[in-house]
Amino acid sequence: LTAGKCPQIDAARVIADLRELDRRTGGPGGARRLAWTDEWREARALLGELLSQIGISSDRDEAGNVWARLEGDEEPAVAIGSHLDSVPSGGWLDGALGVLAAAGVMRSWVSSGQRPPRSLALVDWADEEGARFGHSLFGSSAFSGTFDAPHAGELCDQTGQRLADVVAADGVDSRRALEAGRRRARLGCYLELHIEQGPVLERRGLRAAAVSGCVGIERHRCRFIGQTGHAGTTPMTSRRDAGLAACAAALELEQIAVRCAGTATTGSLTLRPGIPTAVPGEAEMLVDVRHAEAAQLHVMLQAVLGAARAAADTRRCGLRVERVWGIAPIEFDETLVVLAREACAEIAGSDFALRSGALHDAAEVARVLPVAMIFAPSRGGISHAPEEDTSDADLTAAIETFDRLCTKVLISRGPIAERVA
Amino acid sequence: LTAGKCPQIDAARVIADLRELDRRTGGPGGARRLAWTDEWREARALLGELLSQIGISSDRDEAGNVWARLEGDEEPAVAIGSHLDSVPSGGWLDGALGVLAAAGVMRSWVSSGQRPPRSLALVDWADEEGARFGHSLFGSSAFSGTFDAPHAGELCDQTGQRLADVVAADGVDSRRALEAGRRRARLGCYLELHIEQGPVLERRGLRAAAVSGCVGIERHRCRFIGQTGHAGTTPMTSRRDAGLAACAAALELEQIAVRCAGTATTGSLTLRPGIPTAVPGEAEMLVDVRHAEAAQLHVMLQAVLGAARAAADTRRCGLRVERVWGIAPIEFDETLVVLAREACAEIAGSDFALRSGALHDAAEVARVLPVAMIFAPSRGGISHAPEEDTSDADLTAAIETFDRLCTKVLISRGPIAERVA
Repeated sequence: LTAGKCPQIDAARVIADLRELDRRTGGPGGARRLAWTDEWREARALLGELLSQIGISSDRDEAGNVWARLEGDEEPAVAIGSHLDSVPSGGWLDGALGVLAAAGVMRSWVSSGQRPPRSLALVDWADEEGARFGHSLFGSSAFSGTFDAPHAGELCDQTGQRLADVVAADGVDSRRALEAGRRRARLGCYLELHIEQGPVLERRGLRAAAVSGCVGIERHRCRFIGQTGHAGTTPMTSRRDAGLAACAAALELEQIAVRCAGTATTGSLTLRPGIPTAVPGEAEMLVDVRHAEAAQLHVMLQAVLGAARAAADTRRCGLRVERVWGIAPIEFDETLVVLAREACAEIAGSDFALRSGALHDAAEVARVLPVAMIFAPSRGGISHAPEEDTSDADLTAAIETFDRLCTKVLISRGPIAERVA
Repeated sequence: LTAGKCPQIDAARVIADLRELDRRTGGPGGARRLAWTDEWREARALLGELLSQIGISSDRDEAGNVWARLEGDEEPAVAIGSHLDSVPSGGWLDGALGVLAAAGVMRSWVSSGQRPPRSLALVDWADEEGARFGHSLFGSSAFSGTFDAPHAGELCDQTGQRLADVVAADGVDSRRALEAGRRRARLGCYLELHIEQGPVLERRGLRAAAVSGCVGIERHRCRFIGQTGHAGTTPMTSRRDAGLAACAAALELEQIAVRCAGTATTGSLTLRPGIPTAVPGEAEMLVDVRHAEAAQLHVMLQAVLGAARAAADTRRCGLRVERVWGIAPIEFDETLVVLAREACAEIAGSDFALRSGALHDAAEVARVLPVAMIFAPSRGGISHAPEEDTSDADLTAAIETFDRLCTKVLISRGPIAERVA
């Protein structure tokens, strides 16, 4: 069997499915598929409809990941997918592209009447974004075995609700989430299509690229504790303003990131009591620090925590630091990345691999399975925002490149087949 | 009639009433008498009970202020009071002290069986704090005529609820709030007891002091508009981070306040989307700028807005500034302030007057009536926080000083009586 004789994905249909998803769960304010909410459930219901149309049923594992299988001639299966959840006011393509393209791959095989040479397993990972609790890759980390249930279950959102209680409403018992790892036994590798969420492909004029791995991330909560006081009567020089301590730390973090050639982001900052007439007695910031090299990531993190400590000391504030979540840098599977580059060359006319600064479920799955990813470009490099977009032409090229990569792995023989067996 | 022949306030009873109020609407997390909430209504219900016990009924004006009258021999009445609303997690004394002391003054006259030589009017001003909408002195500004109904009605809280809609639930039509000013006709002056909320009295070892006036305040909302982006893929050097722009502005504000010998506070700062994985595309801060001199307040405000503009420009962010609220500095009535100092000397054994850095309903009322205030000391100068406290001995001295001031005004003859007539 050669790639040319295999069914081809209908990219236009995948794009139409993405627009339907956007119609149901997005709009001018952006995507609203926040994990563990009704809109996320509605997105998953649409996936169920699409799979039903081609006669494929789905089920959920102990971590809330949705799985669907199409049996082929050989086992183990090639897993394909991404995540349907989004950040609040997110983009229409982030995650959804990979899941609906995976459904498109399955549809092409079913429609053709051909039995795939190897089984396919579609997966929609639960809560990739971690937007609510700061814990990214919920479902895929449970699958890979790195999920720390006792720690994660106690994480709270900004209203004080516990992760364990919130996921329970979706039938997930976080203490049993690691049992999702049993699905690994019947899988040989994992392939994922995703938008880049950055500016590299657009700047280089590429319609698709292979991904060689993911940066490492450290995410910490820094709580500055000063003294609440009256805005009109507390002299400037005797204040212990926790808000200004956090502001000073946030500005210093930026300098550290520039110096270390990584990224550091203060995306969440909450002042308490948070009213105009009170000097903030408490400020809580969530910092996200990233670097491609494990050693440099460690150096950056130490500098960041040192800067937070210095900012607290300067304003006579206390500081409590809590590690919310982290992941080590990871390289994807060398053999599969070569196949991904070949697919890019054959379909998109370019051969380029880059390391992802964004996090993906693939970064967790790569700890237990051979993994490769394809990126589609992001207009203006913008993501996690309503403006996130990719042209239909670029989407088509990337979807077809991903389809080609799947085909290559499905029909592989010799050393590549051994790699995924 | 001399002060010695007039009934004396039962300060212990006033303190007991304050503790009962704290039991019902406070606790370890601080006072919860936020205006337009159930706990505020509960606080007002307690006031109603206390007045009922002495046979005095109360009613509400068009701005939601509660009034109660005790008829005396002469008109117009001496108004006494303060506000029952608090900031979230506030202190037990802020505002409540003045209202319950006013009830105590009425109680002493009723209990004695003596008819006061001049009528007394108790007032509990609605929403002094402005904690939710950033608009302080709601009720007293409606009374004094400075309330800007079309502007105020459209102010929104952090969840997007409009002030006009929220106050309507308490039966207040904000478009008609200015009609509360009709109550002025039957009032001759206004006296208020309040905690200092600052460190001056404690440092000087004073149990009570007269207040000569209030600082001016400018409160503005600065909205920085950058570009939301992915925390892992947006290069540090190409970010338009609205959160960092706001942080830089907040730090600069502090320097301006120190230079100008005023205060500047960033008590509220909100990032959007406010999640750890996104560079904030929007940051909204509420700044509160205060100075005793009108000209200096203007200079400070211009410097603050210039700093915000510079911080926005540096990070290629847009900036929208909205004046939320403001009040000019004001001097209290010279004649009444002299009486207040005399009361301090006679009861608390010290003669001292200071200008208030905190805002009080008296600052609005002073625009239309002669006004004086008495301050009680605040332990550690702390207020707008659960730790706010004053010793029973200091409270007793301040309550009795306020009572003496009321008596002096009630029995006044000659030029003072003409001042309040």
